[in-house]
Amino acid sequence: MTSTDGRQKWLTVAEELATALRVDAAERDRRGAEPVAEVDALRRSGVLAIGDWATQQAVTRVVGAADANVGHLLGYHYLQVWRSGLFDSVSVPVGDDIFWAGVSNPLDAALELRSVDGGFEVTGRKTFATGASVADRLVVSATHTETADKITFTLDAKADGITYAGDWDNIGQRLTASGGVVFDHVHVPADQVLGAHDDTSPRLSLAGLGFQLVLAQLYVAMAEGALAEAAQYTRTTTRPWFLSGVDKATADPYILGTYGELVSETQAAGFLADHASDKLRQASERGADLTRNERAETAAAISSAKVVATKVANQTTSRVFELCGARATAGGYAFDRFWRNARTLTLHDPVSYKAREVGAYFLTGEHAPYTGYS
Amino acid sequence: MTSTDGRQKWLTVAEELATALRVDAAERDRRGAEPVAEVDALRRSGVLAIGDWATQQAVTRVVGAADANVGHLLGYHYLQVWRSGLFDSVSVPVGDDIFWAGVSNPLDAALELRSVDGGFEVTGRKTFATGASVADRLVVSATHTETADKITFTLDAKADGITYAGDWDNIGQRLTASGGVVFDHVHVPADQVLGAHDDTSPRLSLAGLGFQLVLAQLYVAMAEGALAEAAQYTRTTTRPWFLSGVDKATADPYILGTYGELVSETQAAGFLADHASDKLRQASERGADLTRNERAETAAAISSAKVVATKVANQTTSRVFELCGARATAGGYAFDRFWRNARTLTLHDPVSYKAREVGAYFLTGEHAPYTGYS
Amino acid sequence: MTSTDGRQKWLTVAEELATALRVDAAERDRRGAEPVAEVDALRRSGVLAIGDWATQQAVTRVVGAADANVGHLLGYHYLQVWRSGLFDSVSVPVGDDIFWAGVSNPLDAALELRSVDGGFEVTGRKTFATGASVADRLVVSATHTETADKITFTLDAKADGITYAGDWDNIGQRLTASGGVVFDHVHVPADQVLGAHDDTSPRLSLAGLGFQLVLAQLYVAMAEGALAEAAQYTRTTTRPWFLSGVDKATADPYILGTYGELVSETQAAGFLADHASDKLRQASERGADLTRNERAETAAAISSAKVVATKVANQTTSRVFELCGARATAGGYAFDRFWRNARTLTLHDPVSYKAREVGAYFLTGEHAPYTGYS
Amino acid sequence: MTSTDGRQKWLTVAEELATALRVDAAERDRRGAEPVAEVDALRRSGVLAIGDWATQQAVTRVVGAADANVGHLLGYHYLQVWRSGLFDSVSVPVGDDIFWAGVSNPLDAALELRSVDGGFEVTGRKTFATGASVADRLVVSATHTETADKITFTLDAKADGITYAGDWDNIGQRLTASGGVVFDHVHVPADQVLGAHDDTSPRLSLAGLGFQLVLAQLYVAMAEGALAEAAQYTRTTTRPWFLSGVDKATADPYILGTYGELVSETQAAGFLADHASDKLRQASERGADLTRNERAETAAAISSAKVVATKVANQTTSRVFELCGARATAGGYAFDRFWRNARTLTLHDPVSYKAREVGAYFLTGEHAPYTGYS
Repeated sequence: MTSTDGRQKWLTVAEELATALRVDAAERDRRGAEPVAEVDALRRSGVLAIGDWATQQAVTRVVGAADANVGHLLGYHYLQVWRSGLFDSVSVPVGDDIFWAGVSNPLDAALELRSVDGGFEVTGRKTFATGASVADRLVVSATHTETADKITFTLDAKADGITYAGDWDNIGQRLTASGGVVFDHVHVPADQVLGAHDDTSPRLSLAGLGFQLVLAQLYVAMAEGALAEAAQYTRTTTRPWFLSGVDKATADPYILGTYGELVSETQAAGFLADHASDKLRQASERGADLTRNERAETAAAISSAKVVATKVANQTTSRVFELCGARATAGGYAFDRFWRNARTLTLHDPVSYKAREVGAYFLTGEHAPYTGYS
Repeated sequence: MTSTDGRQKWLTVAEELATALRVDAAERDRRGAEPVAEVDALRRSGVLAIGDWATQQAVTRVVGAADANVGHLLGYHYLQVWRSGLFDSVSVPVGDDIFWAGVSNPLDAALELRSVDGGFEVTGRKTFATGASVADRLVVSATHTETADKITFTLDAKADGITYAGDWDNIGQRLTASGGVVFDHVHVPADQVLGAHDDTSPRLSLAGLGFQLVLAQLYVAMAEGALAEAAQYTRTTTRPWFLSGVDKATADPYILGTYGELVSETQAAGFLADHASDKLRQASERGADLTRNERAETAAAISSAKVVATKVANQTTSRVFELCGARATAGGYAFDRFWRNARTLTLHDPVSYKAREVGAYFLTGEHAPYTGYS
Repeated sequence: MTSTDGRQKWLTVAEELATALRVDAAERDRRGAEPVAEVDALRRSGVLAIGDWATQQAVTRVVGAADANVGHLLGYHYLQVWRSGLFDSVSVPVGDDIFWAGVSNPLDAALELRSVDGGFEVTGRKTFATGASVADRLVVSATHTETADKITFTLDAKADGITYAGDWDNIGQRLTASGGVVFDHVHVPADQVLGAHDDTSPRLSLAGLGFQLVLAQLYVAMAEGALAEAAQYTRTTTRPWFLSGVDKATADPYILGTYGELVSETQAAGFLADHASDKLRQASERGADLTRNERAETAAAISSAKVVATKVANQTTSRVFELCGARATAGGYAFDRFWRNARTLTLHDPVSYKAREVGAYFLTGEHAPYTGYS
Repeated sequence: MTSTDGRQKWLTVAEELATALRVDAAERDRRGAEPVAEVDALRRSGVLAIGDWATQQAVTRVVGAADANVGHLLGYHYLQVWRSGLFDSVSVPVGDDIFWAGVSNPLDAALELRSVDGGFEVTGRKTFATGASVADRLVVSATHTETADKITFTLDAKADGITYAGDWDNIGQRLTASGGVVFDHVHVPADQVLGAHDDTSPRLSLAGLGFQLVLAQLYVAMAEGALAEAAQYTRTTTRPWFLSGVDKATADPYILGTYGELVSETQAAGFLADHASDKLRQASERGADLTRNERAETAAAISSAKVVATKVANQTTSRVFELCGARATAGGYAFDRFWRNARTLTLHDPVSYKAREVGAYFLTGEHAPYTGYS
């Protein structure tokens, strides 16, 4: 089977997942429950084990368009597996039934790591650990209390001493299980240690870029999803405005023109995100040879994609209502979930500083700093 | 007491109402109950009896900024009283404790009116009758089954035969009691008839413009409210971005610049709405002498205000999140209510046709048609 | 004659000036000569002697819409007379035939002032002295070489020792005679000294705000002028697009919609500028009682107007081409002059720092600093 | 030599051309002469004979960024050769020293073709024949007076009976020699006839799409060129604003942020144009098998690219001034040429109808009609 065949097969699977997710997306958004069933569906579908980078990205977009929560969980799952590989140490287990999540919000105080027999012990609390409470395996970062090394390791998500706060109750991305995690003297076996962070390493610094890229992809997916759902509504339900002189909404010049603008912008954002994705794949494949210049170019491409996708996501998910009309605000449709999801996830980190990064790289060649967000 | 003194007094009352409404606006939005307590607060405050046009508009803006639901109810209340006066027949009762609402969605089939002893009898169903279910008095329009005259009259909101569907459950303006109303052979006393519609009368046609104006004012209020609430959050809660080089969010150049843009645009929209309000007051005061040209100019001014205010409301209520940061998406704040309210109310009728109207009047002097929306 | 009558009379005069200026605006822009004839037309019309603030502003807008160069010269003329009055010393001569200009670019090195018998002597060079080379009288600022006082005084524009570089050759505002001025030991009679600058005085600081306000008014005028000229073209010359299904350009839904948006935004900017103008008039009338808080509020209002007007001017003068079609780019029309003028004049000082000021005042009440630009 | 090597070689040649064109672009724009020397430079460089589609597009972008006039001439040259091949009849001569242009403005009345011994004779007048007056060979379309067939053929550009009006004097694209052409009984040898138009043929209809694509590419190039030129200026000449708190313009947060936004949007537009280019290449390679559905998909991709590129070009070429500051409006730089070029060329046909096309295809699958513009 060629790579293209493989991708096509997985896109079909993704479309099936998407179709199923769309059926009750509004209802599930309202309930805001832990995405247990959703992650189970990912496990059953086989997509968790996809290894090809571009296929992962494409599948994330398709699933994310149908349900940005599940797209988020899936995109981050791929990232955790990928970033684990950046350490070039042990390889982490991948399989249809292993859903990965991470615990490493860079803005929280670090978890504390202490050496114990056979490994380490980790203690502390992190907020916003997307997917952790419904995960099988976790990638966790903590700081050794004596050496001050920042160590990354994996854990069984159900390991003794881990509890999940279940305190994610936000206006968007409600089903992403993004609440806090508490570690109470949790044992970390030595063979689950991936490595120590080296904040001068271009290669290790790619991890942060990976998250930025997946966010950009998800923003594009949100715009795509909103457009698809709106189009379905316009075709079937929107009534022509009585002053329009046309007999169906699909012939209204303003509706057509606005679809055209939003669709075009969304496509542009999508190709830019795909380009950024390809740059990150190439950077990743460079391994230890990755230079600081190559890393900087990759970072700029990803930030570019994030800048455009942020604008497109927020704008499209809001403006689609104009294409559907007043009755599309009925609560049952919950069309506002697209905007709530976009608005929430696009705040992950301030887009103004992404634009600044792109500008500085373009104008002076300045490299983005190596952080959890750049 | 001069008119300015009077306005100032009422603005103080409005600010008190606004302060009280802000306290639990998020919580009330979540519950989405009928606005019984809110309308009671309006009754107690005395604002329902304000007679001065400009004061009505200013009070609507202040209240609407704090809670767009209540602003909507109040603005429409003033409109019902005012539009009743356009018929130059009986004057309707106004008082601190009389809350008015209307039943006249132009896009529904007309209610049916039949002549009976001592007046008429009305039967039928209308959707989207904002405030009707919590009103004391209603202004209703119906079509006589024999003469085909479109007659407007008032009713006691609790009259026999009137039932409220309570079926308003939309993503925004959730507390506006905008559900349907069913009339089952409701008696209309002859002395409650305001008059027959004459769709060639510039004066009677002002009613439709009044609604457009109040919508524009409410859109501005929504933007003002979102900015005020965001500023409070930025000042007290937003943390400076770690790459910003500043030690507090209120010194971040991008946050300051974006506030500046949004505030400036909102102010511009506000002055345009005030200008439109003044034009409508003047047109209204012209009485039967109002010419078709004057009416057209008034309509264009109001549509202009609506075009700008629509854009400002949707943009501002979405972008304020960027000024607050990711944690402002926590469900408890329900900051999304500003956007949900704006998005819902700005769909009242398609803004693209308002822009078209403004363009046609500017380019060729074409008069907007006399409709329920223009 | 009431003030309103007076204003109406001057608006009629302004319209006549405007009509005459429109006739050969494209041709004069191409030649780019010194605006000698234009300033003569101002002298002959009588508008140079208008004393009422609001009338000055309104006349500037009307003239500026027809020819932004002449509007610029006229608006600055009024400003020089007005700012001279802020010193509360001698009053400067005003008359139909006295055209004032200023020499005080804050970003240049200061002119040098030395005490001599009967007054002072000024030496040095300034760039960008709009209108100076065609003026009758100048307001000049210079710094005393011994006391370091910054002194403002008036001069006869033809005084011995003054030469005009004639070096203004920019892409826009080509007829504003905004070249440099050289002073070579020019005598300044003592009775022409207006006073010394006190950079803690709210009242004296109004001068800088005056320029900002007039710029905002001119930006609005540019948008108004472009819309008026475009509308004339659309009505008479634009052909309907063959796929539009309409038989004249004035019925094209996209042309109408875009006019509607641009006209509405321009009107909003205009009312905001008028509001700012009124605030500055009030501040000016407060005289020495003007407080720092009042000054800050005035500054914010003006910056707000400038932020919105900048956006509207650049956008409108560019987008009007879409309303006229490809053939409107023929060189003979020189419709690009509106954008070139707007683009040039809106760069006077960076609008991003105006937005920042508005944001800071709104968010924290921070006062704009007292500078030549704020 | 692989295709990639070949492309790289030509990109190097294109960069050399670009560097040379940049040196006096402002001066040449001012003179507005016929682009004789420019076309000679194209001949000498060898780029006229490039055969690979993607390389042609890439070279057009590089040259167009430096000088949109020359990019326009070059892009259209490639198109004339390519569209000649759509007829599958004779192949037209291609060589380093053969510059092609076309004469076929769809909105003019058709040229008249009459059968004569050994071929045809063509008579009539067309406007806007970009490059024709400086071309070696022409592709011309005319309508047979008897059969009403629309026939396309080639001519020597210097053939007897052809005269060039030299009447192109527009605000932008001044060096594109886009004036009119007059044919006075010009002989058309039979072996220079490419074929008859069949307006139901998907394959032949690709010609119109080709022009749309090249326009989109040129719009992107204009934005790229403006950004490159602005960056050079910001780095070397722009002074930091005195209130910015930074000591060089390249550290100003607003300048960096705005560069970031404009660069990101331009990149997105570029990738969308590249995607559209690839779709057209694929469609072209399908030959006679091209289906109506494939053609519709290709048309939509190209219109999408044009919608985004139009916005990006107009916006970027205007906003770059904010990144350079007031002194960048000095006439000598002629930085306004980027906007004048963009504004002129983006009016080629109304973008609102392109947006409409994209919207209709997305919403209902409606195919764009086969016209000279879609």
